[in-house]
Amino acid sequence: MAKIGIFGAAGRMGRAIAQVALDAGLDISGGTDRPGSGEVAPGIVITSDPVELARRSDVLIDFSVPAALAAHLDACIQAGKPVLVGTTGLETQHHALIDKAAKSIAVLQTGNTSLGVNILSALVEQAAARLGDDWDIEIVEMHHRHKVDAPSGTALLLGEAAARGRGISLADHSARGRDGITGARVQGAIGFAALRGGSVAGDHQVIFATEGERIELGHRAESRVIFARGAVRGASWLLGQPAGRYDMKGVLGL
Amino acid sequence: MAKIGIFGAAGRMGRAIAQVALDAGLDISGGTDRPGSGEVAPGIVITSDPVELARRSDVLIDFSVPAALAAHLDACIQAGKPVLVGTTGLETQHHALIDKAAKSIAVLQTGNTSLGVNILSALVEQAAARLGDDWDIEIVEMHHRHKVDAPSGTALLLGEAAARGRGISLADHSARGRDGITGARVQGAIGFAALRGGSVAGDHQVIFATEGERIELGHRAESRVIFARGAVRGASWLLGQPAGRYDMKGVLGL
Amino acid sequence: MAKIGIFGAAGRMGRAIAQVALDAGLDISGGTDRPGSGEVAPGIVITSDPVELARRSDVLIDFSVPAALAAHLDACIQAGKPVLVGTTGLETQHHALIDKAAKSIAVLQTGNTSLGVNILSALVEQAAARLGDDWDIEIVEMHHRHKVDAPSGTALLLGEAAARGRGISLADHSARGRDGITGARVQGAIGFAALRGGSVAGDHQVIFATEGERIELGHRAESRVIFARGAVRGASWLLGQPAGRYDMKGVLGL
Amino acid sequence: MAKIGIFGAAGRMGRAIAQVALDAGLDISGGTDRPGSGEVAPGIVITSDPVELARRSDVLIDFSVPAALAAHLDACIQAGKPVLVGTTGLETQHHALIDKAAKSIAVLQTGNTSLGVNILSALVEQAAARLGDDWDIEIVEMHHRHKVDAPSGTALLLGEAAARGRGISLADHSARGRDGITGARVQGAIGFAALRGGSVAGDHQVIFATEGERIELGHRAESRVIFARGAVRGASWLLGQPAGRYDMKGVLGL
Repeated sequence: MAKIGIFGAAGRMGRAIAQVALDAGLDISGGTDRPGSGEVAPGIVITSDPVELARRSDVLIDFSVPAALAAHLDACIQAGKPVLVGTTGLETQHHALIDKAAKSIAVLQTGNTSLGVNILSALVEQAAARLGDDWDIEIVEMHHRHKVDAPSGTALLLGEAAARGRGISLADHSARGRDGITGARVQGAIGFAALRGGSVAGDHQVIFATEGERIELGHRAESRVIFARGAVRGASWLLGQPAGRYDMKGVLGL
Repeated sequence: MAKIGIFGAAGRMGRAIAQVALDAGLDISGGTDRPGSGEVAPGIVITSDPVELARRSDVLIDFSVPAALAAHLDACIQAGKPVLVGTTGLETQHHALIDKAAKSIAVLQTGNTSLGVNILSALVEQAAARLGDDWDIEIVEMHHRHKVDAPSGTALLLGEAAARGRGISLADHSARGRDGITGARVQGAIGFAALRGGSVAGDHQVIFATEGERIELGHRAESRVIFARGAVRGASWLLGQPAGRYDMKGVLGL
Repeated sequence: MAKIGIFGAAGRMGRAIAQVALDAGLDISGGTDRPGSGEVAPGIVITSDPVELARRSDVLIDFSVPAALAAHLDACIQAGKPVLVGTTGLETQHHALIDKAAKSIAVLQTGNTSLGVNILSALVEQAAARLGDDWDIEIVEMHHRHKVDAPSGTALLLGEAAARGRGISLADHSARGRDGITGARVQGAIGFAALRGGSVAGDHQVIFATEGERIELGHRAESRVIFARGAVRGASWLLGQPAGRYDMKGVLGL
Repeated sequence: MAKIGIFGAAGRMGRAIAQVALDAGLDISGGTDRPGSGEVAPGIVITSDPVELARRSDVLIDFSVPAALAAHLDACIQAGKPVLVGTTGLETQHHALIDKAAKSIAVLQTGNTSLGVNILSALVEQAAARLGDDWDIEIVEMHHRHKVDAPSGTALLLGEAAARGRGISLADHSARGRDGITGARVQGAIGFAALRGGSVAGDHQVIFATEGERIELGHRAESRVIFARGAVRGASWLLGQPAGRYDMKGVLGL
């Protein structure tokens, strides 16, 4: 049976993944996290050495922090093991690291592992392709009070889908963090807004608004278990793939 | 310039259509409604004879009541004029009348004339096709306090789209008017719920719900002007069409 | 330490209550349910005799079915123990039984044990008191696919709050299960609509709609753990109360 | 009959106010706006001199821009006329000007003139007073694409209500324009997010989120007619008031 290693095993998502994998009867090879971050799940060995973890795993899952990505990718490359990257808050340089790693190993990077969000993303792309830019696009999300980055990785994934549908670059058309005298909305912009509070696992809504009407396309996650399930399913799918960069579409058959 | 005749000209939608047509510089040939239903718009002649109205019009728009549909279709057939039917609350027998009329004239029947709802309908069909029936489908709508039928014509249009995507018959899988001891949800059912109040022009939401997550696809109309605009656009498009039954997809190029 | 007995211990809420009580280090005296309904939690003894359970408990919690209420109340009266009733789908005759039982024991009956819903209920009552009946009131709720009654107990609790604020009787002003040709909305009615699907723990919204504007007051429960916590808190509070009928206001200090 | 003068008469709100006042049979003394801003309504004289306008009016309404506030207040003081200020985007210095003006004339300043929003504000204040700061408060609003300031005046009005309920200063506890690595949410903060698009007249939602549950209190305006009506009602009420600073509570009898 394939053995899964978890980078960032003591975080919220790391613990949820360990639980889901154990409930499904899968084998966990261990995890990395900061020393003293506590027990993750019964029998899960925590190490601070990613290379050592990668060597004794068949596939890796990374839900940690952007600053640790380079070391995690290096470990997977050294060990020749595939990895699913679900860490959010990635910047341009992190995506470049992933592209480079994908030349020697299979890497699946995604802002969201759930079936629902990936279906939503496909619908958003189509809506954006069919509606002219007199339909303004806004993306609003809510997450729990502990989340440190904004917008969420999923909001960016949905923004990329909208930009792709419209044939524009998201980087050139984002409107983020509106505050103060902003001036009128720029035509063609894709707006982002982030709400934080309580224990919300993740709610997202993409709004297309024009004169007199609105289309609202949204997703609600009741708990992070659905993300953990998707991550485990994605990791299992990665085992059979050649080197390259992937997203959840292949996993979900979209 | 083409002359538009309006069946049910003194109703909410009839008045909105007259206003939109006049604002757009179009020519209105007149309208029908009950005697004494008041002035519709400056210069609009109200008659109680649908045949006479159809004869002096190039195209007809019907937003009246199901009971008047037979007479309105007959008038259009006698005069050989195309007609857009936006009346809601239609039953099986009304659809049969439309099918029959469509053998001699062009008839466009739709539960909703707006671009937004028709795009939404296409997205709902796709989502239903991609998601298995472990994703429960619910449709909820809100309209103003004067609306007399439930669910709305648009809710049924969206339900038909969901059923088509899933390859089932809506008639065999509807769950309407839940109240009391209903028992557990029947797998594969498409549920409908209707809210009524204030002056809401029309809000609709289709919910796909499974274990742990939900996709919500919705539309909000700020005023019935968007429906009136779509009706006038549909009527103009109908002028060039041969006999047959149409919906808004052709009009909107979907 | 007080011992809690759970009627309907093998149901969704029964299991959640057992888990919360155990996590909080409380003592569970056991539970009732149908024979063969499976293990509820480690060490929880299931019996089919409510009197026996009531005798060895300090306080009882009932989240079972309306048909079992009479037997459960009798058991509590015989044993002289207080009981919290969270069962939904209660009819007039069940409320009469509770009133009668409350003459000899302390009974807390509630449609919802969460702090959030009880705060919401107070806000709904005030809004209804301040807004005239040209503001139409609609209540919509969504619950998981296994729920057998509609509207939910919480929707009725919110409807009662609205009726109380407005000084009317809910029984005389309910509009439930709208379907077909309903006619225009009756002024002063309080409408109910029920959505069912997936694993939704419980979402409620009360809408006040008038010409041109709407107020929307809602609550979302992420999991039934919050209801279980409220039930355990309510049961603990009941221990010190004399015979009588109570709701959550006393527990929550509202 | 009292004569109403409108500062910023050619703007969206200025035009709506003129329309509502004319429909109600009220007398409009005229308006100010930039030269060449077009006809506001039949018979409305536009001047660039606020003092002249104030002299021939009984009460003034200002829905213009913060930069013009000083001149408008001076004009009202010179003419000894009351004024309703609905301009949004006001900063500390503008509020100081209003306080000063209120020593010699009656000034009503409000972020929103509708009954619904002012009722909502009262409910938000109470909810904030009853819920501890383990309930995170977030305020999200959506307005049309032409709005130049964020958050909206109404969002700030609701934020002030929440802060008042909680006994804190909004200025010290606002979290606005979240973007990038924000860190975890600060306990006790009141978050704001702004969406812009289409022709949305104004939607607001205040979310109270804690572990496992959320309360959502919102308002939707279908058109700016409700704000115009409230402004005209407020101006009529102001006619009888002595010098001082007022809000909508007095007007609406809250």
